[in-house]
Amino acid sequence: MTTGSRKVTGFPVPTLPAPPVAVVGLGQLGGSLAAALVAAGREVTGWDVDPAARAAAEARGVRIGRELAGVVVLAVPLPAMSAALDGLTVAPDATVTDLGSVKAPVLAELGAAFGTRYVGGHPMCGTERSGHAATDPALFSGARWALCVEDGTELPRWLRVAEMALDAGAEVVPVTAAEHDSAVAAISHVPHLLAAALAAAAAEAGPLALALAAGSFRDGTRVIGSDPGFVRAMVDGNAAPTTAALARVQEQLARPWADLVADGHAVVTRQQGRRTVRVPLDRAALLALGRAGGAVTRRLAAFVEGWIPETPAPEAA
Amino acid sequence: MTTGSRKVTGFPVPTLPAPPVAVVGLGQLGGSLAAALVAAGREVTGWDVDPAARAAAEARGVRIGRELAGVVVLAVPLPAMSAALDGLTVAPDATVTDLGSVKAPVLAELGAAFGTRYVGGHPMCGTERSGHAATDPALFSGARWALCVEDGTELPRWLRVAEMALDAGAEVVPVTAAEHDSAVAAISHVPHLLAAALAAAAAEAGPLALALAAGSFRDGTRVIGSDPGFVRAMVDGNAAPTTAALARVQEQLARPWADLVADGHAVVTRQQGRRTVRVPLDRAALLALGRAGGAVTRRLAAFVEGWIPETPAPEAA
Repeated sequence: MTTGSRKVTGFPVPTLPAPPVAVVGLGQLGGSLAAALVAAGREVTGWDVDPAARAAAEARGVRIGRELAGVVVLAVPLPAMSAALDGLTVAPDATVTDLGSVKAPVLAELGAAFGTRYVGGHPMCGTERSGHAATDPALFSGARWALCVEDGTELPRWLRVAEMALDAGAEVVPVTAAEHDSAVAAISHVPHLLAAALAAAAAEAGPLALALAAGSFRDGTRVIGSDPGFVRAMVDGNAAPTTAALARVQEQLARPWADLVADGHAVVTRQQGRRTVRVPLDRAALLALGRAGGAVTRRLAAFVEGWIPETPAPEAA
Repeated sequence: MTTGSRKVTGFPVPTLPAPPVAVVGLGQLGGSLAAALVAAGREVTGWDVDPAARAAAEARGVRIGRELAGVVVLAVPLPAMSAALDGLTVAPDATVTDLGSVKAPVLAELGAAFGTRYVGGHPMCGTERSGHAATDPALFSGARWALCVEDGTELPRWLRVAEMALDAGAEVVPVTAAEHDSAVAAISHVPHLLAAALAAAAAEAGPLALALAAGSFRDGTRVIGSDPGFVRAMVDGNAAPTTAALARVQEQLARPWADLVADGHAVVTRQQGRRTVRVPLDRAALLALGRAGGAVTRRLAAFVEGWIPETPAPEAA
């Protein structure tokens, strides 16, 4: 990683014209992405098996069609990924990405189909709502968007997908699929299981407990209001990292409560500054940025600009 | 419990004039309660060791004073409960209640000091904010307020406290201290520990994981943003029920994920109707209402009115 500087002395250099984007699946994530990109002035084609989703996207300026070129985004649930392109035509030079919440299994599947034309992605947003009625062009604004840099990744394709994510308002976090899956197990998949266990155990405790349930229970269980089919696909598709992350939570729960409470409080209330950095277009440098907890915020000519936290995240002692 | 009826044919009968209320501790809970009761037309005296809290309450129409009569509410954190009345005068016939999040230890302490003049209470509201700046007269609106009916409880005193809670906009859930402590372990104290463990384990997973943390992590950890001293006092003061409730969560986490996800989802998305009921002023009948997951919403002459869920809460299979 290059030495950071708060004062940005570089200036944007023209890169290749932005390619068109084709979004397959126009539900909450895909519909929101298509709408955000249209608003950012990108040329967007969309497709969904549901005519109502197509109509909603068309009303937001998305061209509806089955011919996909440029950056092709598979915005469908994990179980639907393999059949998402049935009946559609993908241009031979298109870059293919997805928004799936698990990356290693999708890399195995789409990497086999598209080789190095596939770049895995996962925007860290979305709510317990789903479907095209939950579309929100601001959904990605300020969100982190994990984008996979594997051994064979073609950096120009990675950059095309990164620029699309930046245009949607997100910040791009370079990761490997394995790093991603381990990280999201800890911060997304385990929270879904904890929410389910908390809700089921409270029901077991009885009607009085549920009647007294208030803010801490609602917050702690909200995420299991999501479609249970999606949640199962997510945790089953990331079983080994989720099991490992759950074991780390169990170890925390075995600690003295005073220490546990102090450490948990410190993590959620920590204020961290940010330091602007420039990162060369190099796999190792990009991954180092992601591992430091940073993100890419701008594409310049020969490098990307971003930030890393001012101080390293403390370990839970 | 009497048989319920949606059609309420009774009518309010004048009861004793509402006694004055004295609130000791004018932080988020006490300040909000005092302000809500002033707005409801009750005569309210308040006291706080912090002059700024006293000034804020006075500006909302609370009379500031050290002479406490009628219903005396100890709205101070658990560790401050025993010294909260130092330097204050409590009328000999006053009913004493509290807002503490654990009931058996407070019953032991205040029951020893005030005998059957003490009625334990716990409104299920409050946020991770605290202090008089977080005062909100609507805080109790629609909230459940657990109110203890022990073996020796004098029902007329219980009703005075219940009427105060109803005046603040809450619904009253009759419970024993032991039932309360077991229920809140499941729906409040365990969520605090899970939130702490989730946050600490994510920090252990590293900066990348924290950088990708989004909605499900924020929701799942929000409650551990609360003052760690309060949280420790809460879980330590309710250690045995919290340990038991945590064990139930651990058992849930050991189940197959598909079953766990399905059951947790069913609990948080269940829609339950309500049936209006009338309950005689009788300890067993009141406790049966609470155990059924119901609450008191109105005091009439010889009974209270309330509701119970239409169908019993399903057990987590």
